[in-house]
Amino acid sequence: MGVLEDLKAKLGESGVLEGEAAAEKAQGGWSHLGTPKAVIRPATTEEVSFVLKTCHAAGQGVVAWGGKTGLVEGGNAEGLIALSLERMNKIEAIDPVSGTMTAGAGVPLQAACDAAEEKGFFFPLDLGARGSATIGGNIATNAGGNRVLRYGMMRELVLGVEAVLADGTVISAMNQMLKNNAGYDLKQLFIGSEGTLGIVTRAVLRLRAAPKSQDTGFVAVDEFAKLPKLLRHMEAALGGTLSAFEVMWEDFYKLVSTEPAQGRPILPHGSPYYVLVEGLGGNQDEDTPRFENALMGALEAGLASDAVIAKSQAERDAMWALRDDVAQVINLFPIFTYDVSLRIADMETYIEKVKADLSAKVPGHSLIVFGHLGDGNLHVIVGSHDGTPETRRLVEGIVYDPLRDIGGSVSAEHGIGLEKRPYLGWSRSPAEIALMATLKRTLDPKNILNPGKVLEPEIKAAAE
Amino acid sequence: MGVLEDLKAKLGESGVLEGEAAAEKAQGGWSHLGTPKAVIRPATTEEVSFVLKTCHAAGQGVVAWGGKTGLVEGGNAEGLIALSLERMNKIEAIDPVSGTMTAGAGVPLQAACDAAEEKGFFFPLDLGARGSATIGGNIATNAGGNRVLRYGMMRELVLGVEAVLADGTVISAMNQMLKNNAGYDLKQLFIGSEGTLGIVTRAVLRLRAAPKSQDTGFVAVDEFAKLPKLLRHMEAALGGTLSAFEVMWEDFYKLVSTEPAQGRPILPHGSPYYVLVEGLGGNQDEDTPRFENALMGALEAGLASDAVIAKSQAERDAMWALRDDVAQVINLFPIFTYDVSLRIADMETYIEKVKADLSAKVPGHSLIVFGHLGDGNLHVIVGSHDGTPETRRLVEGIVYDPLRDIGGSVSAEHGIGLEKRPYLGWSRSPAEIALMATLKRTLDPKNILNPGKVLEPEIKAAAE
Repeated sequence: MGVLEDLKAKLGESGVLEGEAAAEKAQGGWSHLGTPKAVIRPATTEEVSFVLKTCHAAGQGVVAWGGKTGLVEGGNAEGLIALSLERMNKIEAIDPVSGTMTAGAGVPLQAACDAAEEKGFFFPLDLGARGSATIGGNIATNAGGNRVLRYGMMRELVLGVEAVLADGTVISAMNQMLKNNAGYDLKQLFIGSEGTLGIVTRAVLRLRAAPKSQDTGFVAVDEFAKLPKLLRHMEAALGGTLSAFEVMWEDFYKLVSTEPAQGRPILPHGSPYYVLVEGLGGNQDEDTPRFENALMGALEAGLASDAVIAKSQAERDAMWALRDDVAQVINLFPIFTYDVSLRIADMETYIEKVKADLSAKVPGHSLIVFGHLGDGNLHVIVGSHDGTPETRRLVEGIVYDPLRDIGGSVSAEHGIGLEKRPYLGWSRSPAEIALMATLKRTLDPKNILNPGKVLEPEIKAAAE
Repeated sequence: MGVLEDLKAKLGESGVLEGEAAAEKAQGGWSHLGTPKAVIRPATTEEVSFVLKTCHAAGQGVVAWGGKTGLVEGGNAEGLIALSLERMNKIEAIDPVSGTMTAGAGVPLQAACDAAEEKGFFFPLDLGARGSATIGGNIATNAGGNRVLRYGMMRELVLGVEAVLADGTVISAMNQMLKNNAGYDLKQLFIGSEGTLGIVTRAVLRLRAAPKSQDTGFVAVDEFAKLPKLLRHMEAALGGTLSAFEVMWEDFYKLVSTEPAQGRPILPHGSPYYVLVEGLGGNQDEDTPRFENALMGALEAGLASDAVIAKSQAERDAMWALRDDVAQVINLFPIFTYDVSLRIADMETYIEKVKADLSAKVPGHSLIVFGHLGDGNLHVIVGSHDGTPETRRLVEGIVYDPLRDIGGSVSAEHGIGLEKRPYLGWSRSPAEIALMATLKRTLDPKNILNPGKVLEPEIKAAAE
């Protein structure tokens, strides 16, 4: 076909993979990537521009691929062209005076973090997929993770981006400053829009001062209402250094600290909630006593029923290993996984309702809850004895429906992709969705950029 | 005329001011507000929607007014309808569990901060206009100020907004969570777009833990290259609590610490740079020694040539009073004021060039420089013996032209409004400006929202 010939002529044979080679590239995704017609591997922004211009002229759909660790089929390229940013993986510059890094979209998150560390800085985004997920994918999904409470989501960590529009126009908004209010902040269009409004090729990241201390504690809490109080207590007592406040419901904690899991209990089983608390500060000698005092204060105030502080890196690692061992849910297969957000004040009632509905409607289910409480973000995993589409829809209803009335979100940090598209209207009003469709239609009138993701094609058509 | 009659019928007589009453409302702006045809004072989002629907049908231009403290004629309503949000000034709710505030756009910043404090929280936005500037205006301009380094600009402090589009459509995106990635983040359209894409009526603000300690120091630095090093040193040593790093060039410092100014020198004159450093932390007993050690370390490392720490609130107030006494530039009248941002690494060369060009081309000038160095944001004030448009243009060229080559911004935090509109192209590429115009045309096809601000009308026309 003409498009692929044109792309080969420009990018060379190694820049355009088809057949087996393309199918192989589509393996190993954390959610289904489909079978792309071809995988295109541009090496420069100018090549990305050429690819999109060519596809735009032909009305050919294009799906951007980063580290392929998305969880909601945002990268599903079935029958379309996949545009992999894997060759745009250079860290172009680190400016130690301003504290910024300029990097290609294909740089893996871990590589960016390592490069920052080498220069005495810190790039704070931290999530399970850090080894594979790329800066471009982090931007496209507005990635969150474990330190949002302190440093914000990817949106707050990006100063500038370069992106290519559907028609090949290059928008180079590589701002290097914390403050820049010269006109509309165009980069916001490309952050969190899952490759549907443009393809990010490069970015300027904000680096932070490298922490010089790390204090990690593990806390048992005996009732939900104490969790937000403990959060506020630790925030205030640590004066700006609280970096993680990860809550595990009892069932999650048991799962990751009991065989066949490798982990063992850090505090005894039997508490309804466990919290991993971490501070990243400037001076270990001063911060450790402060952290100890803060936890002591929490125990004295009755906000915590038990607590332990990591005394070594091995102990710290053991705490994080429990939190990170989400893979144990494999023992509950088939499972359905959710990533919701809601006001902390609504969480207890919400989880009770989900529990009650599951008990009533899904016999033999299991329910695993954990998440970034300070961010309003809970990960909810439901194990069921069958994984049929009917059961999936039933469970989706149980998990998503209560969010409609309380202003909750069906996607805290994973995005909408294909998987959550039917539920976008649970968290967004018709006016909001119509405005999203207007933006999509304006920036991508031929609907070639990740077509069908985030927004229903019929909504788009209906609005026209 | 029909529009005003319709608005009176809906809003009542007190909701529509004309003639003298309207002219009076246009007094006291920090930049020119023009003479509006009428000032409309809706009390609800529904009324704002009615006003815009009516004006949209009639093709009537509307300029939103908040606290009227904008500095770039963003609120100039000459011959147009001014829509004041002053009656939408209710703090609707504070959620102490999630740490959020829901407020009308017309709430003054100081009132929001006070209400947060009453509930044991902290809303960190801090700027000179705090008593008059409103939450809606802070959002429309993406306000910055003194604590951006630690807490971000207004964009980072807003979780949700409600806004009314040009045609009266209400976009209620009153998200309450730190994390929400269900579709495009529409609020970003309204933050920093100066009322040209929609009018913000309500917002959800993120509150932070109230600081329990405050440490303030005043430091002399003998060469520019040491300033960013001192910044990084303090960031690292204070481990997350560094909240202000305000640099004053010598001329500014002399101006505000010499008669007729009220202030007196905190450190002796004679240093090229002075820095006000502040940390906001969790425990005064622990934080003060930490702050002292950090400054001591800076002195020992030669990053500071002299330093003093405030030992009382009065001493702290005296330090901030110097920084805040920008009004002293009245002694240099006529003056031209600028608000630029650039990479810290470029600052020294940039200021040298501005100095040299002023010396060559503007006899008898004075040059005052200060700002938020960590944010890349410098305020530059040039006194001249005449304030003619020709001299203004000459000085604008001297200040703005060098920014073109180094990726600097003609507006760090004041916005573009009318005043900087001719220079938008200094900081944004034609492709970026074309995309801004596309957004404007899509959301406001009749160009009724703050028409002529930010974007040149002719650019808009040319793109059509």
